[in-house]
Amino acid sequence: MIRSHNPATNLAFGPEITPSSHGEIASRCQAAQAAIGPWGTPLGLRVSLMESVAEHLQSVKQELVAFAQEETGLPEARLNGELDRTANQWRIFAKFVQEGSCFGATIDPALPDRTPLPRPDLRMIKIPLGPVAVFGASNFPFAFSVAGGDTASAVAAGCPVVIKANPAHPQLSQKVFNLLVEASRDVGLPESLFGLVQGGAREGLALVQDPAIQGVGFTGSQRAGLALWRACQNLPIPIPCFAEMGSLNPILVFPSALTTRKEALAEGYVSSLTLGVGQFCTNPGLLLLPEGEDAEAFLNLVAKRLGETAPAPMLSPAISHGCEDGWKALSQREGARVLVAPSGDGCSLSPGLAAFQSQAVVDSFEEVFGPIGIVVTLPKDSFTQEASRILRLHQGQLTGTIHGEEGEETELGLSLLMPFVGRIVWNGWPTGVEVTHAMQHGGPFPATTDARFTSVGPHAIDRWLRPISLQNLPASHWPPELGNGNELGIRRRVGGQME
Amino acid sequence: MIRSHNPATNLAFGPEITPSSHGEIASRCQAAQAAIGPWGTPLGLRVSLMESVAEHLQSVKQELVAFAQEETGLPEARLNGELDRTANQWRIFAKFVQEGSCFGATIDPALPDRTPLPRPDLRMIKIPLGPVAVFGASNFPFAFSVAGGDTASAVAAGCPVVIKANPAHPQLSQKVFNLLVEASRDVGLPESLFGLVQGGAREGLALVQDPAIQGVGFTGSQRAGLALWRACQNLPIPIPCFAEMGSLNPILVFPSALTTRKEALAEGYVSSLTLGVGQFCTNPGLLLLPEGEDAEAFLNLVAKRLGETAPAPMLSPAISHGCEDGWKALSQREGARVLVAPSGDGCSLSPGLAAFQSQAVVDSFEEVFGPIGIVVTLPKDSFTQEASRILRLHQGQLTGTIHGEEGEETELGLSLLMPFVGRIVWNGWPTGVEVTHAMQHGGPFPATTDARFTSVGPHAIDRWLRPISLQNLPASHWPPELGNGNELGIRRRVGGQME
Repeated sequence: MIRSHNPATNLAFGPEITPSSHGEIASRCQAAQAAIGPWGTPLGLRVSLMESVAEHLQSVKQELVAFAQEETGLPEARLNGELDRTANQWRIFAKFVQEGSCFGATIDPALPDRTPLPRPDLRMIKIPLGPVAVFGASNFPFAFSVAGGDTASAVAAGCPVVIKANPAHPQLSQKVFNLLVEASRDVGLPESLFGLVQGGAREGLALVQDPAIQGVGFTGSQRAGLALWRACQNLPIPIPCFAEMGSLNPILVFPSALTTRKEALAEGYVSSLTLGVGQFCTNPGLLLLPEGEDAEAFLNLVAKRLGETAPAPMLSPAISHGCEDGWKALSQREGARVLVAPSGDGCSLSPGLAAFQSQAVVDSFEEVFGPIGIVVTLPKDSFTQEASRILRLHQGQLTGTIHGEEGEETELGLSLLMPFVGRIVWNGWPTGVEVTHAMQHGGPFPATTDARFTSVGPHAIDRWLRPISLQNLPASHWPPELGNGNELGIRRRVGGQME
Repeated sequence: MIRSHNPATNLAFGPEITPSSHGEIASRCQAAQAAIGPWGTPLGLRVSLMESVAEHLQSVKQELVAFAQEETGLPEARLNGELDRTANQWRIFAKFVQEGSCFGATIDPALPDRTPLPRPDLRMIKIPLGPVAVFGASNFPFAFSVAGGDTASAVAAGCPVVIKANPAHPQLSQKVFNLLVEASRDVGLPESLFGLVQGGAREGLALVQDPAIQGVGFTGSQRAGLALWRACQNLPIPIPCFAEMGSLNPILVFPSALTTRKEALAEGYVSSLTLGVGQFCTNPGLLLLPEGEDAEAFLNLVAKRLGETAPAPMLSPAISHGCEDGWKALSQREGARVLVAPSGDGCSLSPGLAAFQSQAVVDSFEEVFGPIGIVVTLPKDSFTQEASRILRLHQGQLTGTIHGEEGEETELGLSLLMPFVGRIVWNGWPTGVEVTHAMQHGGPFPATTDARFTSVGPHAIDRWLRPISLQNLPASHWPPELGNGNELGIRRRVGGQME
């Protein structure tokens, strides 16, 4: 049984929710599959649906935010902003599919006189993979959950979506799901375009293993993400699984920055590390510093600020316990110097900070989801080699940050970080992920399962589309995207040239 | 030891070639990795390299074709055409990367006055994955081998390439490889941008497991492709493996077509089935017909033509034996009606044809690589259901073909085939793969390992690129693709709008 839990009061509330049975999961997946034909939802209706979801979300904003506060303990202002961002994502996708470049519509007209053989008429368009399973994340109850970016991008692609509700906010999930169904009904699309599954790992596994499911979007822990990804690979017909599994988001601080602006660095680092009680996948978990007096002065500043930070409620007792366990393992590693020890009551937690000399780091650190900072100090005479070694130990990351001067330092930072990250941040902090075309929220394994895709921004749609070529198909059967007249006015490539 | 073999004479010739050692493989991969920085080969040099490869290939065309004839037994005219096509692929990629849309360059300028928070400057560009391992295919010694589409697309992406030579043409592989190295040297790029590995399955596995390799392109059998794909998934850091593993390419013949043009159908089918001794991944291996008198008349015509077809040399004794074994298993299946039995001498082979009633088909047919046709006749009163069942049994295919009339039949054919194929052919035959923007040469599993990509046409480059976002990076460190002035003149998206 699943029950809502208020992180602020540490009390359960509301009804007991029964996890979905395998039969229910199967019937929702089948119904989702039956909701579309091979071309997916018609583009016009699809756009209306996306706009309608945005309106529905904002029309009951106060009620949703109030309820989300109870189930997640997140502050009202943050949730208000997150809901607007979530609605905005749907509008961005609606606009993006209307422009239509994402469908890669391409026409290579027949060349009947070509020698030695004529060329047939070839038209290509990207079509939806089919029903997509989406896993709601705990830390963004709107933006990465039931009506979050994975769902919006899959709907934008023309796919039905069956959503595994995050057990940390089961009632909010149901409320938001009801809005999706209402929006679908309002625009005249089948209600079964959306399905909801309540439950935990077992129900999630049953969902991705359903033969109707053709793709998976996941945001969460590495353990859960890898289990789903492996399950998808091991199916009789493997399906793509895009799992965004968070990362340590290394921050590479060069001597110049540490010497000239250690106070600003300390302030920025503490703000980023403790934002949302550290529950961001772009949390700056690993700070690499040149060792010495400046590093010690910086760490004193950081430790002072972190030590003054009061415990704050985490999203769920499971996350809070996970963070405490992670801290325990971290602080017991050989060579750990505990600068700030976190304290908590099993639900709220204050920040923690541990420092290591790089020579002591022979295994990778695991991400501790929460306000836990790991600092590694690097000998000045082998700064580059040691930074390279530490980065290589940890492999793929969502982001990598350079604090340093333009020129040599930045060049070195780029060459060290680029092979391992999806986003480079310069003299800033990685928390804060813009929903815009130039955003890459993804990165080499194990940050995600496929560095070629993003889960934030309009290009997130690319995960759910595949191209199909139509050879000599008569005009009466062309989809509107491929008609000679381009009645939808989308961006296309015709005869090799972009229109 | 590997030795060349002449399929026309069934004799071995030339030197004994030692398979590459693990040490050699590792050092070639490391050298390839060291050949580029994080941005890949500079775009200008990359374009020069691609044009140079095209020129080198055509400058020694006669010599290459003559040699290829000896090692593959393929006819001169076919090899001449294939070499030109191969050179042309390099030119197409050179042009495509100059236009630059494939790099998805995107600029979202800073919005310093945005509330509640300013937006940073964000610039995105797709960068090469890193060294790519390419597996040469036996059946296209130029177009899908050492300097084939996988290599050309990876080079176009800016990647170094280490190529596993196909053991069916080891000497030609070395000759073509030498041209790649020469071209690289000519334009001033490191020779180690390219590496060659001679050997079989063991050497191939060592290649994909080398830690420098970041992606794999493979064309060949399902057995080999799946083994490599699994190996790539099971690496400590899994890498994308695009395996194109051929398929049965179902042909769905509707009653109208069978009644009105059975002679043309028979002629077209036989030509497509026997083209290149059936050694195409788009070979029409599975024909679905409405049962009855028309079907019998059609099959008589086909059987007569196929029976008159003389044995022709296959690419290698291994392929010829594989085809004979495949035929044996096929003809011994329950319900098999042998219409034409192939005959051969262990190197050359004539076509075979077996028919089944659909009710007898309870397991999927395996692809038999060669001139082997499988015909399944479907009861007229359950044509759609049985066609659907048979297609579902076989899952993903490179192509699916509809022979029928515009309107209802074609609509039905599309809904039956589209979920399973990468290319729909209408009233034609699947052999013949155009190298053009609208070509999708790929398809759902198990035709390929990822239906979202193609291995033919300019979009094949997408397999080897991943996006990276640069946040607030100073202008002095932008790659030329992302400068405000767009000095390379590539296609970009700026402020949400395509330029």
